[in-house]
Amino acid sequence: MTRFALKLEYDGTHFVGWQRQANGPSIQQCLEQAAAPLNNQTEPTIAAAGRTDAGVHATGQVALLLLPDANPARLTARTIRDALNYHLQPHPIVVLEAALITDPDWHPRFSAIARHYRYIILNRPARPALEATRVWHVKTPLDATLMHQAAQSLLGKHDFTSFRATACQANSPLRTLDRFTITREDNHIIATISARSFLHHQVRNMIGTLKLIGDHSLPADSLPKILAQKSRAAAGPTAPPTGLFLSAIDFRADPFAS
Amino acid sequence: MTRFALKLEYDGTHFVGWQRQANGPSIQQCLEQAAAPLNNQTEPTIAAAGRTDAGVHATGQVALLLLPDANPARLTARTIRDALNYHLQPHPIVVLEAALITDPDWHPRFSAIARHYRYIILNRPARPALEATRVWHVKTPLDATLMHQAAQSLLGKHDFTSFRATACQANSPLRTLDRFTITREDNHIIATISARSFLHHQVRNMIGTLKLIGDHSLPADSLPKILAQKSRAAAGPTAPPTGLFLSAIDFRADPFAS
Repeated sequence: MTRFALKLEYDGTHFVGWQRQANGPSIQQCLEQAAAPLNNQTEPTIAAAGRTDAGVHATGQVALLLLPDANPARLTARTIRDALNYHLQPHPIVVLEAALITDPDWHPRFSAIARHYRYIILNRPARPALEATRVWHVKTPLDATLMHQAAQSLLGKHDFTSFRATACQANSPLRTLDRFTITREDNHIIATISARSFLHHQVRNMIGTLKLIGDHSLPADSLPKILAQKSRAAAGPTAPPTGLFLSAIDFRADPFAS
Repeated sequence: MTRFALKLEYDGTHFVGWQRQANGPSIQQCLEQAAAPLNNQTEPTIAAAGRTDAGVHATGQVALLLLPDANPARLTARTIRDALNYHLQPHPIVVLEAALITDPDWHPRFSAIARHYRYIILNRPARPALEATRVWHVKTPLDATLMHQAAQSLLGKHDFTSFRATACQANSPLRTLDRFTITREDNHIIATISARSFLHHQVRNMIGTLKLIGDHSLPADSLPKILAQKSRAAAGPTAPPTGLFLSAIDFRADPFAS
């Protein structure tokens, strides 16, 4: 079976999320439809490293394209990329890179060793004119240094039940957070968050809680106590999806290294 | 007469440009309509430092709002900003800052001592999914270092006839370019261009020509010869408006310094 890894960029604004759902268009569905002409007109299956929610964007999602009915001799990584981008029009989804996968055990979800997210807050009185669907607009001044310091207490292995969506289907609430930096660049507050994997809504729930520390609604040392309570009600609200970007996936061997 | 300076951000995509025109909505018209409730329901006049073209964006345009029919006692800079932003909805135009102007001779167009533009090229094979109306997408690899070096020959005072739109109404083709830097950040090529003032389409015509140097269609030392020919036909095509941002205007005394 011919298999390609795909590195994807997309605007999640008008999608129900990565995964196919009955209630609207998904990234997965658009990609599978665009790939049908490459697979003898049969929609193939495409699996992703991270199943992003409705409104969440990606600049470095990684997916696996299986082409059981394709003629492998005619398919190079470059023709896959260009043909998919042609058929993906006019949807705001593009294949940045494609790479032939020869290891039969490689899978974007299970082979990923790190996932990297960015979250962008626009922190100023005026609403965004250029980035309306790309940021969380927070009018109240936020102390980004305080938010960064507080976020460091989430690093390492913890029970993240307090930051987990009630609908989360993961077996364990234990996750290991490897990086959480928050910096200010003029009116933008940019968070970079890395872990092997995340619980459902974990990034947005952590950001929503850190915002309450940034505007002094919560004490700066609240996070260890919130973790210890192991209750979703102990943490802050879920930050909106508009500011969230799945920016990169790491694998032990980078499929796109050429 | 009550007068306020406004610092503006806007998405130029769906506008005919700054200036009022019969063939579609303009930034000026939207602002003047939004300001009518502050001026006893009469649309006031708003003049800008730079009359951006259709599709061109701004992150730091400066305009002057005249309110001949307003009650000045009720108007602070903050109420002007917030009221305009309220009435500007849902247009992608916002007032970042407002400042009371007391100097009767201050005018955004004539008092400006420098205008700063940014131009962003997305240089990669795949079309943009997140920045479609915010960049010029160029698939051919461009040598940004070569483009930067070539751009330096445009600095200083020159006759810019070769880079001037045929419709340009300026009295003189002489302009003094103070800064032209071009840097690459991953797949983005970012140009920063500063001058006291520019001819019509000057930035886009310079970028369109530098692109031909970047992809080796033109020799790296072409620009002095193109300047010397004083003919629009000697230079390259006009770069699209999507990548252009009016980013800042300088004044001898910053009206927004508080």
